[in-house]
Amino acid sequence: MIRIGILGATGYTALELIKLLLRHEHAKIEAITSRQEGRPHVSAIHPSLSGRLDMHLEDLGPEQVAERCQCAFLCLPHAASAESAKALLARNVRVIDLSADYRLNDAATYKKWYEHDHPDPERLGKTPYGLPELFAAEIPQARLVANPGCYPTSAILPLAPLLKAGWIEPDDIIVDSKSGVSGAGRTPKLNTLFPECNESISAYSVGKHRHQPEIEQILGRATGQSVSVIFTPHLTPMDRGILSVIYARPAKQVTEAEVLSLLREFYAGKPFVRIVNHLPATKDTAHTNYVDITARVVKGRVLLISAEDNLVKGASGAAVQNFNLMFGFPETTALL
Amino acid sequence: MIRIGILGATGYTALELIKLLLRHEHAKIEAITSRQEGRPHVSAIHPSLSGRLDMHLEDLGPEQVAERCQCAFLCLPHAASAESAKALLARNVRVIDLSADYRLNDAATYKKWYEHDHPDPERLGKTPYGLPELFAAEIPQARLVANPGCYPTSAILPLAPLLKAGWIEPDDIIVDSKSGVSGAGRTPKLNTLFPECNESISAYSVGKHRHQPEIEQILGRATGQSVSVIFTPHLTPMDRGILSVIYARPAKQVTEAEVLSLLREFYAGKPFVRIVNHLPATKDTAHTNYVDITARVVKGRVLLISAEDNLVKGASGAAVQNFNLMFGFPETTALL
Amino acid sequence: MIRIGILGATGYTALELIKLLLRHEHAKIEAITSRQEGRPHVSAIHPSLSGRLDMHLEDLGPEQVAERCQCAFLCLPHAASAESAKALLARNVRVIDLSADYRLNDAATYKKWYEHDHPDPERLGKTPYGLPELFAAEIPQARLVANPGCYPTSAILPLAPLLKAGWIEPDDIIVDSKSGVSGAGRTPKLNTLFPECNESISAYSVGKHRHQPEIEQILGRATGQSVSVIFTPHLTPMDRGILSVIYARPAKQVTEAEVLSLLREFYAGKPFVRIVNHLPATKDTAHTNYVDITARVVKGRVLLISAEDNLVKGASGAAVQNFNLMFGFPETTALL
Amino acid sequence: MIRIGILGATGYTALELIKLLLRHEHAKIEAITSRQEGRPHVSAIHPSLSGRLDMHLEDLGPEQVAERCQCAFLCLPHAASAESAKALLARNVRVIDLSADYRLNDAATYKKWYEHDHPDPERLGKTPYGLPELFAAEIPQARLVANPGCYPTSAILPLAPLLKAGWIEPDDIIVDSKSGVSGAGRTPKLNTLFPECNESISAYSVGKHRHQPEIEQILGRATGQSVSVIFTPHLTPMDRGILSVIYARPAKQVTEAEVLSLLREFYAGKPFVRIVNHLPATKDTAHTNYVDITARVVKGRVLLISAEDNLVKGASGAAVQNFNLMFGFPETTALL
Repeated sequence: MIRIGILGATGYTALELIKLLLRHEHAKIEAITSRQEGRPHVSAIHPSLSGRLDMHLEDLGPEQVAERCQCAFLCLPHAASAESAKALLARNVRVIDLSADYRLNDAATYKKWYEHDHPDPERLGKTPYGLPELFAAEIPQARLVANPGCYPTSAILPLAPLLKAGWIEPDDIIVDSKSGVSGAGRTPKLNTLFPECNESISAYSVGKHRHQPEIEQILGRATGQSVSVIFTPHLTPMDRGILSVIYARPAKQVTEAEVLSLLREFYAGKPFVRIVNHLPATKDTAHTNYVDITARVVKGRVLLISAEDNLVKGASGAAVQNFNLMFGFPETTALL
Repeated sequence: MIRIGILGATGYTALELIKLLLRHEHAKIEAITSRQEGRPHVSAIHPSLSGRLDMHLEDLGPEQVAERCQCAFLCLPHAASAESAKALLARNVRVIDLSADYRLNDAATYKKWYEHDHPDPERLGKTPYGLPELFAAEIPQARLVANPGCYPTSAILPLAPLLKAGWIEPDDIIVDSKSGVSGAGRTPKLNTLFPECNESISAYSVGKHRHQPEIEQILGRATGQSVSVIFTPHLTPMDRGILSVIYARPAKQVTEAEVLSLLREFYAGKPFVRIVNHLPATKDTAHTNYVDITARVVKGRVLLISAEDNLVKGASGAAVQNFNLMFGFPETTALL
Repeated sequence: MIRIGILGATGYTALELIKLLLRHEHAKIEAITSRQEGRPHVSAIHPSLSGRLDMHLEDLGPEQVAERCQCAFLCLPHAASAESAKALLARNVRVIDLSADYRLNDAATYKKWYEHDHPDPERLGKTPYGLPELFAAEIPQARLVANPGCYPTSAILPLAPLLKAGWIEPDDIIVDSKSGVSGAGRTPKLNTLFPECNESISAYSVGKHRHQPEIEQILGRATGQSVSVIFTPHLTPMDRGILSVIYARPAKQVTEAEVLSLLREFYAGKPFVRIVNHLPATKDTAHTNYVDITARVVKGRVLLISAEDNLVKGASGAAVQNFNLMFGFPETTALL
Repeated sequence: MIRIGILGATGYTALELIKLLLRHEHAKIEAITSRQEGRPHVSAIHPSLSGRLDMHLEDLGPEQVAERCQCAFLCLPHAASAESAKALLARNVRVIDLSADYRLNDAATYKKWYEHDHPDPERLGKTPYGLPELFAAEIPQARLVANPGCYPTSAILPLAPLLKAGWIEPDDIIVDSKSGVSGAGRTPKLNTLFPECNESISAYSVGKHRHQPEIEQILGRATGQSVSVIFTPHLTPMDRGILSVIYARPAKQVTEAEVLSLLREFYAGKPFVRIVNHLPATKDTAHTNYVDITARVVKGRVLLISAEDNLVKGASGAAVQNFNLMFGFPETTALL
């Protein structure tokens, strides 16, 4: 039984993580933290956990977490997350970081997009990116894993096989992604208030979203070439789910059947990637760790379409998948 | 052309009011206020007004409002609203108050439910309640009208005819109401965040909602008897709409047909009350000033069911209806 | 490993059941049936099952089902379900019937509400009602269990303890229930089309819903008295969830604390009933087998409020719970 | 007062049209038709029209329509619409066709995409396309106007100015559009059932949607060049609204400011096109005839983003706008 800590346990990602870990036969949650005053019971923050987890949120430092836990999942804001990771790693706690802090290759790119200095720059570029479908070899022995962003997972998985095969141009890629509102977090803000985003769809952060460099750098890492994408995220009136439609220019003539075959071969044996013939809906993957991917060739352009649950495969499900690999459990434990 | 001021113009009620008044051939908006810093253009706060209203939100005192406006619609928090009304009335501005400040009969009840002293207690009990279907006689000459609460409109209109006729017991009434989320206002709060209230329904303020005494006192005023209701509001995953199902105990034996007839006679000639045979859906009344009402008799109990748009007949539409009556325009102007 | 058949596998209830059973370590699905032509693969009907269940829907008769299966879950229309149950029981297959066919006490009531003769009247009144929280003793040895209706579960569980204790009057009960749209089934109909029921709430079948006699008869069976309820169901714009607000007249003076205590004692040790102090939201129970129940006393009336997932505790979760009890597995297997 | 007929009055487009025309001071609805049996009252089909339009749906032939009406709005299925238009034009009724029948240039393209012979091929290519912002000169004197498709309006309006100016390549355009479910019509179908499309987003008809040739041919007509687009429509969980994000390759170097200026100049004086700096949400245009358009330049690609209400500017609002021009009323009558 691995003793687990969840740091920053008030949000949607942490809630999803707790629910998954409650089903995990080899994980025991020993600490859940937040800066909330007064040690609230977890069910006061997450009523859906009533009767399922009898613990209090505590404001714990790394010492205390290290005393109780072998593995920490960080659901903290960026920068705070790297501070915490550094302190925990120094105390021999293995860390799965759900923030963006360890995903990028270098401190300069990090500073450009996140607008502050990285608290732990030495580990940038050396930390495995927790997408086991692409980086499985690096994860089992890792002390620290950078859990992928929700949008990047939906873009990297469809693109990597084609880029690796040299079938598409790495510098003419458009990723048009639609996300449910839980992706925007649980802090009350005007733009995620129900009457603002219900019955409405809009693009946001066009050309400026922090997941763009993540997509580019990780695809570069996975396929050994420089990749450039135009990335347009949308806020969609639903709780969860990401649908990405990707427009790529083929480097050689390809058919739909060939693209689907390539994807199928590439992901053969990967339990959470489903290459499908039909056009996937986000609902098909809701509350699961699956990513559904299909391909179309339209007027000589390759379209890749992926659907996932942003809170599961896009966040906490992937985190548990990484946890399984890091601690030697079957990859699908608690995820089917 | 009546010169209009809208005080507290950043919320949903004010937005709806502006849209209605833009269609009103005898109203001209001359001031829109808020305590926002920096005189933002109204389209920066309400993008849907781009190109439709070229004004800035201003932080104006009563003097300035009185200079520009003959009539002020107050979309302010309670207490602040009565302060403002007092100052504007003193400067000869006619006032339609969309807050709850002038709806109740007495300062003691007000203090009990709103938990502070009333700033203008003399006008309590003397201010017409702006439900023209019941109090049309008092409105035309009024300097100040208390615009009804959204839930009370949906409960008072179906109940008044039966109480007046003595057909139901005034002390055994249950009002089970379901409201869209816009009714909770535009201030970001956790419980109205999209991922909290989407895909969910819940009751709130059970037995404690401030609209309960309003329903009781106004029904008392309209029908000359002491009325007691149990009131259960719900938050429903939709932008707008209120559905109220009312359970009343008949004081004599009545049939469905008789109740429907009584309602039809009572509201004959009232342009915004539709007595229907079918079970109404809130959508039938969305974006309109209609209230749809039907009746059923089930196991000897009378059920009254009403549907309305909480932002129109439940707030800003009623306000315009009152405005029309106060300034001598046809009651339906800008409302059909 | 118990060999399972699911009859009528194209709807939402069957889909939920399949997902639950895929997590059940002692169940193996051996047959899924429908009258669809051409043996479609289950993933063609339910894309979310792609890669999870490699089976075809087949048009099987009871002989064939009996050859392959020890236990059949019937997700069939009423009447068809009883026909099927009769044939399967005769072939020694144990049956969990998710239709309404075996829930009522007698053929006359059945005929009145379902408008045809019951195909298997002898078993009426003798078949255990599959609400283990009330009828656990009858279920383990049963060959046939009548799985409860979604609304009845949400009404019976809160009411039974108070009726049994004699704390409320059995003939003055109002049940005002709000259900997600999945409760209306997967057959395309105008009233459940997205643009009809989205952004809208409405009551339906007021005083005429078939779950009214079920609530009354089962409460009678559980508490030994004649019970009468007024039942008002609503269609709510969400996929899943039922919230019931129940208004009961106390037979003696009771406080909120006393009612909550009574409920807590009654359901002590029942893993799926959570008596909570807060007002529950359906979302707290979504995708779980929990029912959350609270109580309020308002103006001398007892209000009971329950929330559940209509497809889980209101249908397929309860079915698996019954399966667990019938085959000697821990009650919570595959349900936590 | 122009006498109006609405043919095919049971769907969402017709309902929206009726509501708009009820506000039109110069239009009087004299006939509403459908093949429904038994002359149902319009309020039985559209409960929201209770008390607003006291008419029956009738199964009328062109003779009868021509007797009563000067102008017919056709909300009929394609092919049936052209049959009807032909007969009405022969009887001197002016026609606004909301189907796709007269939008394309030629019968061959029509046959390829609509899979049957065109019933009135002579008028193809000669019928004005009812987008007054581009084809105002042709509409006033027209006997027949082809009302635009909902998606095409959202794509053509942003693209036309840039194509006309030669600023973007006509053969490298991607249109990624997201529509509310009302766009799929009111006939019950599985894919538009609430529990299928709520909480989900999916692309459909990728590379195969009939609005693709419409976008291409009309842009060709408006800008005098051959245009090719890749068009990806999506079903979005909301009632109404279309958001289109368009990716175009500049033919010369342009800045965001220049593109916005070009758009502003092009649409100066057009009352329903709003060029905005912010990223528009469909909600900003809901229940209005506005199209909001903005532009971004990202990594050397031009992004155009438009939002509209698919039922208003995308269908019935545009139809009333055309009606106004055809009959000499101010363009905005009944539309503000």
